[in-house]
Amino acid sequence: MHRFFLPIPFAEQMPITGKDAYHIINVLRMQVGQQLQIVSNDQVSALMEIIALNEAVVSVRLVERLLTTHEPSVRIILAQGLPKGDKMDFVVQKAVEMGVSEIIPLSMDNCVVKLDAVRAKKKTERWQKIVEEAAKQSKRDIVPQVSLPMTLKQLLTNKQDVLLKIVAYEVEDRRGLRELLQAQENITEILLLIGPEGGISKEEFTLAEDKGMQSVSLGKRILRTETAGLATVAAILYETGDFGG
Amino acid sequence: MHRFFLPIPFAEQMPITGKDAYHIINVLRMQVGQQLQIVSNDQVSALMEIIALNEAVVSVRLVERLLTTHEPSVRIILAQGLPKGDKMDFVVQKAVEMGVSEIIPLSMDNCVVKLDAVRAKKKTERWQKIVEEAAKQSKRDIVPQVSLPMTLKQLLTNKQDVLLKIVAYEVEDRRGLRELLQAQENITEILLLIGPEGGISKEEFTLAEDKGMQSVSLGKRILRTETAGLATVAAILYETGDFGG
Repeated sequence: MHRFFLPIPFAEQMPITGKDAYHIINVLRMQVGQQLQIVSNDQVSALMEIIALNEAVVSVRLVERLLTTHEPSVRIILAQGLPKGDKMDFVVQKAVEMGVSEIIPLSMDNCVVKLDAVRAKKKTERWQKIVEEAAKQSKRDIVPQVSLPMTLKQLLTNKQDVLLKIVAYEVEDRRGLRELLQAQENITEILLLIGPEGGISKEEFTLAEDKGMQSVSLGKRILRTETAGLATVAAILYETGDFGG
Repeated sequence: MHRFFLPIPFAEQMPITGKDAYHIINVLRMQVGQQLQIVSNDQVSALMEIIALNEAVVSVRLVERLLTTHEPSVRIILAQGLPKGDKMDFVVQKAVEMGVSEIIPLSMDNCVVKLDAVRAKKKTERWQKIVEEAAKQSKRDIVPQVSLPMTLKQLLTNKQDVLLKIVAYEVEDRRGLRELLQAQENITEILLLIGPEGGISKEEFTLAEDKGMQSVSLGKRILRTETAGLATVAAILYETGDFGG
């Protein structure tokens, strides 16, 4: 069933406008009496029935509230060193499908891509669109946010309150991800830092450690940057019981 | 360090020819005295030193055998319903990086892509090339094999001896992947079946169950076909201690 995120608080009767209305009317060609799912901006998920359509507005009425959440119990913030080409599109899409709550693109020492303010804004808008699509398709209850690209220093200041901060570091060969995760009592929020293609620089690593990030090894095989984040997100969600039951 | 798979048995002195020689000489511009890693076709990994180069052959001599393996303890066979477009390229690349041992493309009821014999052969050659690149890059000790596309029936006959056979089924809502994996004594080999975009048909699911496949749920979010396999592979390797320590 199709799912739409509405930028308004929940009500028993709600209007769907803008591009979602266009999509329902002209692409899906839905009719009065058909059902769809909505998530309101105060996070109510509900099954709704179409009661009227005109050129620009679809009116829907509550059938029933949906009480089961599709959200994981752990809030994962993925901070990804900007990869080359359009790989970030891919990272964003897959991370949202799997259950990440927030995505922060990072400008790091070894990033080949350098974005000026204008391009950074454009790119972020593009990523946010990909996020929205992926959130709909995977039946998320929230639309995760992609922030504007920032530096590692800014990240560590903004997110200093996150209790568990992990950095995947290929030089690390003592502590594995699994060991670290299993040593935690109750994981509710994780900041996960993944470097770009060239890896994390020594200076960045020192800064991250100083600010309380814990380095982990991902194992013996060398993963590309866009694979490392997704595999780690899958592993975290598996560990917390949020992937595969 | 660069790694090359040589199609010959191990010897203290070995020639590298063909496209690998071309790559070493003309792209990497390596010189006598520089070191590289090889894996022979009898599965010896070794650090070698270049002792001579001419236009077409690079001669290397043993420095030391590499005893640590990069291979996971579990042999994962990924049977993937053929996805649309070039998504299979992506599945193949990521699966090999992560540690899958064998990939079997499946022609299934809901596959949009239909390959005749000629195209199937061409595609398989292309996937095998992607596998080789990914195996080199991720420092695998083997080059996983991609077989020609087959039907589910053929798969189940060919792989009937695999003890643990799992199918990710979106209708399944009782048993999670985690529950199934954690109930196993010692996992050495897994056949993992992932359907194409349209999912697994009822008939196929019945056939799979008849032949001993166990269905599992991947959780509450709906994953695209190309995401489902990779996330499941990451979870399996995490469970067996082969990802993230």
